[in-house]
Amino acid sequence: MSFESKLKAGVSRYGFLCLGLDTELEKLPAPLAKSPDSILNFNLEMIEAASAHVAAFKPNLAFYEALGSVGWEILKKTCEAIPKEKIIILDGKRGDIGNSARLYAKAMFEELGGDAVTVNPYLGADSLVPFMENPEKGVYLLCLTSNPGASSFQLFPLADPLYLRVARKANEWNQHRNIGLVVGATHPQPLAAARQAAPELPFLIPGVGAQGGSLWDTVHYGTGGGKIPTLVNLSRSVLYASSGNDYKERAEEELVKIKTEIERLLTRKVPQ
Amino acid sequence: MSFESKLKAGVSRYGFLCLGLDTELEKLPAPLAKSPDSILNFNLEMIEAASAHVAAFKPNLAFYEALGSVGWEILKKTCEAIPKEKIIILDGKRGDIGNSARLYAKAMFEELGGDAVTVNPYLGADSLVPFMENPEKGVYLLCLTSNPGASSFQLFPLADPLYLRVARKANEWNQHRNIGLVVGATHPQPLAAARQAAPELPFLIPGVGAQGGSLWDTVHYGTGGGKIPTLVNLSRSVLYASSGNDYKERAEEELVKIKTEIERLLTRKVPQ
Repeated sequence: MSFESKLKAGVSRYGFLCLGLDTELEKLPAPLAKSPDSILNFNLEMIEAASAHVAAFKPNLAFYEALGSVGWEILKKTCEAIPKEKIIILDGKRGDIGNSARLYAKAMFEELGGDAVTVNPYLGADSLVPFMENPEKGVYLLCLTSNPGASSFQLFPLADPLYLRVARKANEWNQHRNIGLVVGATHPQPLAAARQAAPELPFLIPGVGAQGGSLWDTVHYGTGGGKIPTLVNLSRSVLYASSGNDYKERAEEELVKIKTEIERLLTRKVPQ
Repeated sequence: MSFESKLKAGVSRYGFLCLGLDTELEKLPAPLAKSPDSILNFNLEMIEAASAHVAAFKPNLAFYEALGSVGWEILKKTCEAIPKEKIIILDGKRGDIGNSARLYAKAMFEELGGDAVTVNPYLGADSLVPFMENPEKGVYLLCLTSNPGASSFQLFPLADPLYLRVARKANEWNQHRNIGLVVGATHPQPLAAARQAAPELPFLIPGVGAQGGSLWDTVHYGTGGGKIPTLVNLSRSVLYASSGNDYKERAEEELVKIKTEIERLLTRKVPQ
Protein backbone atom coordinates (compact mmCIF):
# COMPACT_ATOMS: atom_id res chain seq x y z
CA MET A 1 0.00 0.00 0.00
CA SER A 2 1.29 3.49 -0.76
CA PHE A 3 2.18 5.72 2.17
CA GLU A 4 -0.41 8.20 0.95
CA SER A 5 -3.19 5.58 1.11
CA LYS A 6 -2.12 4.27 4.51
CA LEU A 7 -1.98 7.81 5.94
CA LYS A 8 -5.37 8.77 4.52
CA ALA A 9 -6.99 5.57 5.76
CA GLY A 10 -5.49 5.99 9.24
CA VAL A 11 -6.50 9.62 9.66
CA SER A 12 -9.94 9.00 8.24
CA ARG A 13 -10.56 6.17 10.71
CA TYR A 14 -8.75 7.41 13.84
CA GLY A 15 -8.45 11.16 13.47
CA PHE A 16 -5.50 13.52 13.41
CA LEU A 17 -3.56 12.55 16.52
CA CYS A 18 -0.10 10.99 16.71
CA LEU A 19 1.44 9.83 19.97
CA GLY A 20 5.13 10.59 20.38
CA LEU A 21 6.84 7.77 22.27
CA ASP A 22 9.55 9.95 23.84
CA THR A 23 9.94 7.68 26.80
CA GLU A 24 12.51 8.68 29.37
CA LEU A 25 13.56 6.56 32.34
CA GLU A 26 13.67 9.52 34.74
CA LYS A 27 10.10 10.54 33.89
CA LEU A 28 8.34 7.18 34.18
CA PRO A 29 5.40 7.16 36.60
CA ALA A 30 6.42 6.42 40.18
CA PRO A 31 4.95 2.88 40.35
CA LEU A 32 7.35 1.67 37.61
CA ALA A 33 10.85 0.40 38.39
CA LYS A 34 13.61 2.62 36.98
CA SER A 35 15.00 -0.02 34.58
CA PRO A 36 15.17 -0.26 30.75
CA ASP A 37 12.56 -3.05 30.86
CA SER A 38 10.10 -0.52 32.26
CA ILE A 39 10.52 1.65 29.17
CA LEU A 40 9.37 -1.16 26.91
CA ASN A 41 6.50 -2.11 29.22
CA PHE A 42 5.41 1.52 29.51
CA ASN A 43 5.50 1.87 25.70
CA LEU A 44 3.34 -1.25 25.33
CA GLU A 45 0.82 0.20 27.78
CA MET A 46 0.79 3.56 25.98
CA ILE A 47 0.26 1.83 22.62
CA GLU A 48 -2.71 -0.02 24.13
CA ALA A 49 -4.13 3.14 25.73
CA ALA A 50 -3.78 5.17 22.53
CA SER A 51 -4.71 2.76 19.77
CA ALA A 52 -8.38 3.70 19.58
CA HIS A 53 -7.53 7.41 19.41
CA VAL A 54 -4.46 7.90 17.20
CA ALA A 55 -3.54 7.28 13.57
CA ALA A 56 0.21 7.20 14.23
CA PHE A 57 2.97 6.59 16.74
CA LYS A 58 6.23 8.50 16.64
CA PRO A 59 9.19 7.28 18.69
CA ASN A 60 11.98 9.88 18.87
CA LEU A 61 15.23 7.99 18.37
CA ALA A 62 17.27 10.11 20.80
CA PHE A 63 15.43 8.57 23.73
CA TYR A 64 16.50 5.07 22.69
CA GLU A 65 19.97 5.87 21.40
CA ALA A 66 20.95 7.32 24.78
CA LEU A 67 20.62 3.76 26.16
CA GLY A 68 22.99 2.24 23.60
CA SER A 69 22.31 -1.18 22.05
CA VAL A 70 19.73 -1.97 24.76
CA GLY A 71 17.78 1.10 23.63
CA TRP A 72 17.80 -0.12 20.03
CA GLU A 73 16.34 -3.45 21.14
CA ILE A 74 13.61 -1.63 23.08
CA LEU A 75 12.85 0.55 20.06
CA LYS A 76 12.63 -2.44 17.76
CA LYS A 77 10.29 -4.31 20.11
CA THR A 78 8.18 -1.16 20.52
CA CYS A 79 7.80 -0.86 16.75
CA GLU A 80 6.87 -4.55 16.49
CA ALA A 81 4.09 -4.02 19.04
CA ILE A 82 2.41 -1.18 17.14
CA PRO A 83 -0.73 -2.38 15.29
CA LYS A 84 -0.10 -2.79 11.56
CA GLU A 85 -2.72 -0.26 10.44
CA LYS A 86 -0.98 2.54 12.39
CA ILE A 87 1.67 4.77 10.84
CA ILE A 88 5.05 4.35 12.57
CA ILE A 89 7.04 7.57 12.19
CA LEU A 90 10.66 7.16 13.22
CA ASP A 91 11.64 10.61 14.38
CA GLY A 92 15.41 10.61 13.89
CA LYS A 93 15.81 13.82 11.87
CA ARG A 94 18.62 12.11 9.98
CA GLY A 95 20.39 13.70 7.03
CA ASP A 96 23.53 12.52 5.26
CA ILE A 97 24.89 11.90 1.79
CA GLY A 98 25.44 8.98 -0.57
CA ASN A 99 25.87 5.61 1.08
CA SER A 100 25.26 7.06 4.52
CA ALA A 101 21.80 8.31 3.57
CA ARG A 102 21.04 4.96 1.94
CA LEU A 103 22.06 3.13 5.13
CA TYR A 104 20.00 5.42 7.36
CA ALA A 105 16.98 4.66 5.15
CA LYS A 106 17.76 0.96 5.52
CA ALA A 107 18.00 1.31 9.33
CA MET A 108 14.65 3.12 9.55
CA PHE A 109 12.57 1.25 6.99
CA GLU A 110 14.06 -2.26 7.07
CA GLU A 111 15.81 -2.77 10.41
CA LEU A 112 13.17 -0.94 12.49
CA GLY A 113 10.21 -1.33 10.15
CA GLY A 114 9.08 2.30 10.08
CA ASP A 115 6.40 3.58 7.70
CA ALA A 116 7.83 7.08 7.69
CA VAL A 117 10.76 9.13 8.94
CA THR A 118 11.59 12.69 9.78
CA VAL A 119 14.62 14.02 7.89
CA ASN A 120 16.68 17.20 7.98
CA PRO A 121 16.71 19.00 4.62
CA TYR A 122 20.01 20.91 5.12
CA LEU A 123 22.01 18.57 2.85
CA GLY A 124 19.62 18.96 -0.07
CA ALA A 125 18.08 16.92 -2.85
CA ASP A 126 20.41 13.93 -3.26
CA SER A 127 20.57 13.37 0.52
CA LEU A 128 16.80 12.83 0.56
CA VAL A 129 16.42 10.52 -2.43
CA PRO A 130 17.12 7.24 -0.54
CA PHE A 131 14.24 8.10 1.81
CA MET A 132 11.83 9.39 -0.84
CA GLU A 133 12.24 6.83 -3.59
CA ASN A 134 9.85 4.23 -2.17
CA PRO A 135 6.17 5.34 -2.47
CA GLU A 136 5.29 2.96 0.38
CA LYS A 137 7.39 4.99 2.81
CA GLY A 138 6.73 8.55 3.96
CA VAL A 139 9.25 11.33 4.51
CA TYR A 140 8.57 14.36 6.71
CA LEU A 141 11.09 17.12 6.02
CA LEU A 142 11.89 19.47 8.88
CA CYS A 143 10.48 22.79 7.72
CA LEU A 144 9.70 24.93 10.77
CA THR A 145 10.60 23.48 14.15
CA SER A 146 8.81 24.44 17.37
CA ASN A 147 11.88 25.66 19.33
CA PRO A 148 13.21 29.23 19.82
CA GLY A 149 16.29 28.35 17.70
CA ALA A 150 14.05 28.22 14.61
CA SER A 151 14.93 31.91 14.39
CA SER A 152 18.66 31.20 13.81
CA PHE A 153 18.18 29.99 10.22
CA GLN A 154 14.65 28.77 9.38
CA LEU A 155 12.93 32.05 10.23
CA PHE A 156 15.92 34.33 9.65
CA PRO A 157 14.30 37.41 8.05
CA LEU A 158 14.75 37.24 4.28
CA ALA A 159 12.37 38.13 1.46
CA ASP A 160 12.05 34.36 1.00
CA PRO A 161 12.89 32.73 4.34
CA LEU A 162 14.53 29.31 4.47
CA TYR A 163 11.50 27.41 5.84
CA LEU A 164 9.38 28.54 2.88
CA ARG A 165 12.05 27.48 0.38
CA VAL A 166 12.07 24.08 2.07
CA ALA A 167 8.27 23.92 1.80
CA ARG A 168 8.31 24.73 -1.92
CA LYS A 169 11.18 22.30 -2.60
CA ALA A 170 9.24 19.58 -0.80
CA ASN A 171 6.31 20.28 -3.11
CA GLU A 172 8.61 19.99 -6.12
CA TRP A 173 10.18 16.71 -4.88
CA ASN A 174 6.80 15.10 -4.09
CA GLN A 175 6.63 12.90 -7.18
CA HIS A 176 5.64 9.80 -5.21
CA ARG A 177 3.13 11.73 -3.09
CA ASN A 178 4.94 10.53 0.04
CA ILE A 179 6.44 13.79 1.31
CA GLY A 180 5.22 15.78 4.27
CA LEU A 181 6.51 18.68 6.36
CA VAL A 182 7.27 19.09 10.05
CA VAL A 183 5.75 22.44 11.00
CA GLY A 184 5.58 23.48 14.65
CA ALA A 185 2.37 24.83 16.16
CA THR A 186 4.27 27.40 18.20
CA HIS A 187 4.63 29.86 15.27
CA PRO A 188 1.05 30.58 14.05
CA GLN A 189 1.78 33.06 11.24
CA PRO A 190 4.58 30.95 9.69
CA LEU A 191 2.36 27.87 10.00
CA ALA A 192 -0.18 29.66 7.80
CA ALA A 193 2.56 30.70 5.35
CA ALA A 194 3.91 27.13 5.15
CA ARG A 195 0.38 25.87 4.34
CA GLN A 196 0.13 28.46 1.57
CA ALA A 197 3.54 27.39 0.15
CA ALA A 198 2.59 23.70 0.24
CA PRO A 199 -1.21 23.64 -0.08
CA GLU A 200 -1.61 19.86 -0.14
CA LEU A 201 1.31 18.35 1.76
CA PRO A 202 0.52 16.44 4.95
CA PHE A 203 2.02 18.21 7.95
CA LEU A 204 3.36 16.64 11.10
CA ILE A 205 2.72 19.21 13.81
CA PRO A 206 4.58 19.12 17.12
CA GLY A 207 4.30 21.73 19.86
CA VAL A 208 0.60 21.53 20.73
CA GLY A 209 0.81 19.85 24.14
CA ALA A 210 3.56 20.69 26.65
CA GLN A 211 5.02 23.35 24.32
CA GLY A 212 1.79 25.37 24.24
CA GLY A 213 1.18 25.78 20.49
CA SER A 214 -2.25 26.84 19.24
CA LEU A 215 -4.70 24.05 18.50
CA TRP A 216 -6.90 26.38 16.46
CA ASP A 217 -4.06 27.27 14.06
CA THR A 218 -3.07 23.63 13.93
CA VAL A 219 -6.54 22.56 12.89
CA HIS A 220 -7.24 25.50 10.61
CA TYR A 221 -3.96 25.72 8.68
CA GLY A 222 -2.43 22.33 9.43
CA THR A 223 -5.35 20.14 8.39
CA GLY A 224 -6.74 22.68 5.93
CA GLY A 225 -10.00 22.62 7.86
CA GLY A 226 -9.96 18.82 8.08
CA LYS A 227 -9.24 17.98 4.43
CA ILE A 228 -5.49 17.20 4.60
CA PRO A 229 -4.27 14.07 6.46
CA THR A 230 -2.07 16.02 8.85
CA LEU A 231 -0.88 14.54 12.12
CA VAL A 232 -0.90 16.46 15.38
CA ASN A 233 1.73 15.07 17.72
CA LEU A 234 1.39 14.85 21.49
CA SER A 235 4.10 13.38 23.68
CA ARG A 236 4.88 14.52 27.22
CA SER A 237 1.37 15.83 27.97
CA VAL A 238 0.01 12.32 27.36
CA LEU A 239 2.87 10.05 28.48
CA TYR A 240 3.32 11.84 31.78
CA ALA A 241 -0.30 12.91 32.36
CA SER A 242 -0.06 11.24 35.76
CA SER A 243 2.87 10.09 37.86
CA GLY A 244 0.64 7.78 39.86
CA ASN A 245 -1.02 4.41 39.29
CA ASP A 246 -3.62 5.91 36.96
CA TYR A 247 -1.06 6.92 34.29
CA LYS A 248 -2.62 4.73 31.60
CA GLU A 249 -6.17 5.99 32.14
CA ARG A 250 -5.00 9.61 32.37
CA ALA A 251 -2.99 9.24 29.14
CA GLU A 252 -6.11 7.99 27.35
CA GLU A 253 -8.20 10.80 28.84
CA GLU A 254 -5.70 13.39 27.63
CA LEU A 255 -5.83 11.99 24.08
CA VAL A 256 -9.62 11.92 24.09
CA LYS A 257 -9.73 15.51 25.39
CA ILE A 258 -7.55 16.86 22.57
CA LYS A 259 -9.26 14.71 19.95
CA THR A 260 -12.65 16.02 21.03
CA GLU A 261 -11.35 19.59 20.99
CA ILE A 262 -10.03 19.09 17.43
CA GLU A 263 -13.40 17.75 16.34
CA ARG A 264 -15.15 20.72 17.95
CA LEU A 265 -12.81 23.19 16.20
CA LEU A 266 -13.40 21.49 12.86
CA THR A 267 -17.09 22.28 13.05
CA ARG A 268 -16.39 25.99 13.60
CA LYS A 269 -15.60 28.57 10.96
CA VAL A 270 -13.64 31.27 12.81
CA PRO A 271 -11.36 31.38 15.84
CA GLN A 272 -12.68 32.73 19.14
CA MET B 1 41.71 18.40 28.82
CA SER B 2 39.83 20.88 26.63
CA PHE B 3 38.82 19.77 23.16
CA GLU B 4 40.88 22.62 21.75
CA SER B 5 44.05 21.39 23.48
CA LYS B 6 43.49 17.76 22.50
CA LEU B 7 42.87 18.70 18.88
CA LYS B 8 45.94 20.94 18.71
CA ALA B 9 48.16 18.31 20.34
CA GLY B 10 46.88 15.57 18.00
CA VAL B 11 47.32 17.57 14.81
CA SER B 12 50.68 18.88 15.89
CA ARG B 13 51.96 15.35 16.56
CA TYR B 14 50.21 13.33 13.81
CA GLY B 15 49.31 15.81 11.10
CA PHE B 16 46.01 16.78 9.52
CA LEU B 17 44.48 13.44 8.55
CA CYS B 18 41.35 11.82 9.94
CA LEU B 19 40.30 8.30 8.99
CA GLY B 20 36.57 7.84 8.40
CA LEU B 21 35.48 4.40 9.63
CA ASP B 22 32.60 4.04 7.16
CA THR B 23 32.82 0.28 7.17
CA GLU B 24 30.31 -1.56 5.02
CA LEU B 25 29.86 -5.33 4.96
CA GLU B 26 29.47 -5.47 1.17
CA LYS B 27 32.75 -3.62 0.61
CA LEU B 28 35.03 -5.56 2.94
CA PRO B 29 38.13 -7.02 1.24
CA ALA B 30 37.53 -10.44 -0.30
CA PRO B 31 39.54 -12.45 2.29
CA LEU B 32 37.15 -11.40 5.09
CA ALA B 33 33.98 -13.32 5.91
CA LYS B 34 30.79 -11.34 5.25
CA SER B 35 29.68 -11.21 8.90
CA PRO B 36 29.25 -8.38 11.43
CA ASP B 37 32.28 -9.71 13.35
CA SER B 38 34.40 -8.92 10.31
CA ILE B 39 33.39 -5.25 10.54
CA LEU B 40 34.79 -4.97 14.04
CA ASN B 41 37.96 -6.88 13.14
CA PHE B 42 38.46 -4.78 10.01
CA ASN B 43 38.03 -1.58 12.08
CA LEU B 44 40.61 -2.81 14.59
CA GLU B 45 43.07 -3.47 11.74
CA MET B 46 42.40 -0.05 10.21
CA ILE B 47 42.95 1.66 13.57
CA GLU B 48 46.28 -0.16 13.85
CA ALA B 49 47.29 0.68 10.27
CA ALA B 50 46.37 4.36 10.67
CA SER B 51 47.44 5.25 14.18
CA ALA B 52 50.90 6.56 13.26
CA HIS B 53 49.45 8.74 10.50
CA VAL B 54 46.18 10.30 11.71
CA ALA B 55 45.09 12.63 14.50
CA ALA B 56 41.47 11.46 14.46
CA PHE B 57 39.05 8.68 13.63
CA LYS B 58 35.52 9.38 12.45
CA PRO B 59 32.96 6.56 12.38
CA ASN B 60 29.82 7.52 10.46
CA LEU B 61 26.88 6.27 12.51
CA ALA B 62 24.74 5.29 9.52
CA PHE B 63 27.01 2.35 8.80
CA TYR B 64 26.45 0.91 12.28
CA GLU B 65 22.81 1.87 12.72
CA ALA B 66 21.88 -0.10 9.60
CA LEU B 67 22.88 -3.25 11.52
CA GLY B 68 20.58 -2.51 14.47
CA SER B 69 21.70 -3.20 18.05
CA VAL B 70 24.57 -5.41 16.81
CA GLY B 71 25.90 -2.39 14.94
CA TRP B 72 25.79 -0.28 18.09
CA GLU B 73 27.84 -2.89 19.92
CA ILE B 74 30.41 -2.89 17.09
CA LEU B 75 30.56 0.89 17.14
CA LYS B 76 31.06 0.96 20.91
CA LYS B 77 33.87 -1.64 20.74
CA THR B 78 35.46 0.26 17.85
CA CYS B 79 35.49 3.47 19.88
CA GLU B 80 36.97 1.63 22.86
CA ALA B 81 39.83 0.38 20.67
CA ILE B 82 40.87 3.83 19.44
CA PRO B 83 44.00 5.08 21.28
CA LYS B 84 43.16 7.66 23.96
CA GLU B 85 45.27 10.47 22.42
CA LYS B 86 43.23 10.34 19.16
CA ILE B 87 40.15 12.46 18.58
CA ILE B 88 37.04 10.30 18.12
CA ILE B 89 34.53 12.19 15.97
CA LEU B 90 31.11 10.57 15.94
CA ASP B 91 29.67 11.55 12.60
CA GLY B 92 25.94 11.32 13.19
CA LYS B 93 24.88 14.76 11.94
CA ARG B 94 22.24 14.77 14.68
CA GLY B 95 20.02 17.76 15.36
CA ASP B 96 16.95 17.96 17.62
CA ILE B 97 15.44 20.11 20.34
CA GLY B 98 15.18 20.14 24.13
CA ASN B 99 15.43 16.76 25.81
CA SER B 100 16.08 15.01 22.50
CA ALA B 101 19.21 17.06 21.83
CA ARG B 102 20.37 16.46 25.39
CA LEU B 103 19.91 12.70 24.99
CA TYR B 104 21.74 12.64 21.64
CA ALA B 105 24.65 14.40 23.34
CA LYS B 106 24.51 11.79 26.10
CA ALA B 107 24.53 8.97 23.51
CA MET B 108 27.55 10.40 21.69
CA PHE B 109 29.69 11.64 24.57
CA GLU B 110 28.79 9.26 27.40
CA GLU B 111 27.41 6.05 25.91
CA LEU B 112 29.87 5.92 22.98
CA GLY B 113 32.68 8.00 24.48
CA GLY B 114 33.20 10.39 21.56
CA ASP B 115 35.45 13.45 21.81
CA ALA B 116 33.47 15.31 19.17
CA VAL B 117 30.36 15.09 17.03
CA THR B 118 29.03 16.40 13.76
CA VAL B 119 25.69 18.21 14.12
CA ASN B 120 23.17 19.69 11.73
CA PRO B 121 22.58 23.42 12.36
CA TYR B 122 19.06 23.63 10.81
CA LEU B 123 17.28 23.69 14.21
CA GLY B 124 19.35 26.61 15.49
CA ALA B 125 20.98 27.83 18.68
CA ASP B 126 19.14 26.01 21.47
CA SER B 127 19.35 22.67 19.62
CA LEU B 128 23.16 22.91 19.71
CA VAL B 129 23.66 23.95 23.34
CA PRO B 130 23.66 20.41 24.81
CA PHE B 131 26.54 19.52 22.45
CA MET B 132 28.49 22.75 22.86
CA GLU B 133 28.28 23.35 26.61
CA ASN B 134 31.18 21.06 27.61
CA PRO B 135 34.58 22.54 26.63
CA GLU B 136 36.06 19.02 26.67
CA LYS B 137 33.85 17.99 23.75
CA GLY B 138 34.03 19.29 20.19
CA VAL B 139 31.14 20.12 17.86
CA TYR B 140 31.50 20.31 14.09
CA LEU B 141 28.52 22.10 12.54
CA LEU B 142 27.58 21.12 9.01
CA CYS B 143 28.34 24.22 6.97
CA LEU B 144 29.01 23.23 3.38
CA THR B 145 28.62 19.56 2.52
CA SER B 146 30.49 17.88 -0.34
CA ASN B 147 27.43 16.58 -2.25
CA PRO B 148 25.59 18.10 -5.23
CA GLY B 149 22.53 18.75 -3.02
CA ALA B 150 24.51 21.47 -1.21
CA SER B 151 23.04 23.70 -3.91
CA SER B 152 19.44 23.13 -2.71
CA PHE B 153 19.80 25.32 0.40
CA GLN B 154 23.41 25.82 1.61
CA LEU B 155 24.65 27.36 -1.65
CA PHE B 156 21.30 28.70 -2.84
CA PRO B 157 22.26 32.04 -4.41
CA LEU B 158 21.57 34.84 -1.97
CA ALA B 159 23.54 37.97 -1.13
CA ASP B 160 24.42 36.16 2.09
CA PRO B 161 24.11 32.43 1.42
CA LEU B 162 23.06 30.01 4.17
CA TYR B 163 26.44 28.30 4.59
CA LEU B 164 28.12 31.64 5.33
CA ARG B 165 25.48 32.55 7.89
CA VAL B 166 26.13 29.19 9.55
CA ALA B 167 29.88 29.91 9.54
CA ARG B 168 29.42 33.31 11.18
CA LYS B 169 26.93 31.96 13.74
CA ALA B 170 29.43 29.22 14.63
CA ASN B 171 32.01 31.93 15.27
CA GLU B 172 29.56 33.76 17.50
CA TRP B 173 28.65 30.59 19.44
CA ASN B 174 32.28 29.54 19.98
CA GLN B 175 32.56 30.69 23.57
CA HIS B 176 34.19 27.45 24.73
CA ARG B 177 36.53 27.33 21.72
CA ASN B 178 35.17 23.87 20.89
CA ILE B 179 33.26 24.55 17.66
CA GLY B 180 34.38 23.59 14.18
CA LEU B 181 32.79 23.48 10.74
CA VAL B 182 32.28 20.69 8.21
CA VAL B 183 33.31 22.19 4.87
CA GLY B 184 33.60 19.96 1.82
CA ALA B 185 36.66 20.08 -0.42
CA THR B 186 34.54 19.72 -3.55
CA HIS B 187 33.56 23.43 -3.67
CA PRO B 188 36.88 25.40 -3.78
CA GLN B 189 35.53 28.96 -3.95
CA PRO B 190 33.01 28.49 -1.12
CA LEU B 191 35.71 26.74 0.94
CA ALA B 192 37.74 29.95 0.68
CA ALA B 193 34.69 32.06 1.57
CA ALA B 194 33.92 29.90 4.61
CA ARG B 195 37.51 30.34 5.81
CA GLN B 196 37.13 34.10 5.45
CA ALA B 197 33.84 34.04 7.43
CA ALA B 198 35.36 31.92 10.21
CA PRO B 199 39.08 32.74 10.16
CA GLU B 200 40.10 30.60 13.12
CA LEU B 201 37.62 27.74 13.39
CA PRO B 202 38.96 24.20 12.88
CA PHE B 203 37.42 22.66 9.77
CA LEU B 204 36.59 19.03 9.19
CA ILE B 205 37.02 18.54 5.47
CA PRO B 206 35.48 15.58 3.65
CA GLY B 207 35.54 15.05 -0.08
CA VAL B 208 39.28 14.82 -0.77
CA GLY B 209 39.64 11.10 -1.53
CA ALA B 210 37.02 9.19 -3.52
CA GLN B 211 34.95 12.38 -4.06
CA GLY B 212 37.79 14.17 -5.88
CA GLY B 213 38.04 17.46 -3.93
CA SER B 214 41.14 19.61 -4.29
CA LEU B 215 43.93 18.91 -1.83
CA TRP B 216 45.55 22.26 -2.58
CA ASP B 217 42.43 24.23 -1.59
CA THR B 218 42.03 22.02 1.46
CA VAL B 219 45.54 22.76 2.64
CA HIS B 220 45.57 26.40 1.67
CA TYR B 221 42.15 27.51 2.93
CA GLY B 222 41.28 24.65 5.28
CA THR B 223 44.40 24.65 7.41
CA GLY B 224 45.18 28.33 6.78
CA GLY B 225 48.55 27.29 5.40
CA GLY B 226 49.12 24.84 8.25
CA LYS B 227 48.26 27.11 11.19
CA ILE B 228 44.71 25.89 12.01
CA PRO B 229 44.15 22.39 13.44
CA THR B 230 41.86 21.33 10.63
CA LEU B 231 41.18 17.66 9.87
CA VAL B 232 41.16 16.24 6.36
CA ASN B 233 38.98 13.15 6.24
CA LEU B 234 39.66 10.11 4.08
CA SER B 235 37.39 7.08 4.12
CA ARG B 236 36.74 4.84 1.13
CA SER B 237 40.04 5.59 -0.64
CA VAL B 238 41.88 4.20 2.40
CA LEU B 239 39.52 1.50 3.73
CA TYR B 240 39.06 -0.10 0.34
CA ALA B 241 42.49 0.65 -1.17
CA SER B 242 42.78 -3.06 -1.91
CA SER B 243 40.24 -5.85 -2.05
CA GLY B 244 42.98 -8.46 -1.64
CA ASN B 245 45.10 -9.74 1.24
CA ASP B 246 47.23 -6.60 1.29
CA TYR B 247 44.34 -4.29 2.33
CA LYS B 248 46.01 -3.25 5.58
CA GLU B 249 49.35 -2.34 3.96
CA ARG B 250 47.64 -0.56 1.08
CA ALA B 251 45.45 1.45 3.49
CA GLU B 252 48.58 2.60 5.31
CA GLU B 253 50.31 3.44 2.01
CA GLU B 254 47.34 5.55 0.93
CA LEU B 255 47.40 7.53 4.18
CA VAL B 256 51.16 8.09 3.92
CA LYS B 257 50.79 9.21 0.31
CA ILE B 258 48.22 11.90 1.13
CA LYS B 259 50.03 12.95 4.31
CA THR B 260 53.25 13.42 2.33
CA GLU B 261 51.37 15.37 -0.34
CA ILE B 262 49.86 17.67 2.32
CA GLU B 263 53.33 18.26 3.78
CA ARG B 264 54.67 19.04 0.33
CA LEU B 265 51.85 21.51 -0.38
CA LEU B 266 52.43 23.23 2.96
CA THR B 267 55.97 24.15 1.90
CA ARG B 268 54.71 25.81 -1.32
CA LYS B 269 53.28 29.28 -1.67
CA VAL B 270 51.08 29.14 -4.77
CA PRO B 271 49.07 26.43 -6.53
CA GLN B 272 50.42 24.85 -9.71
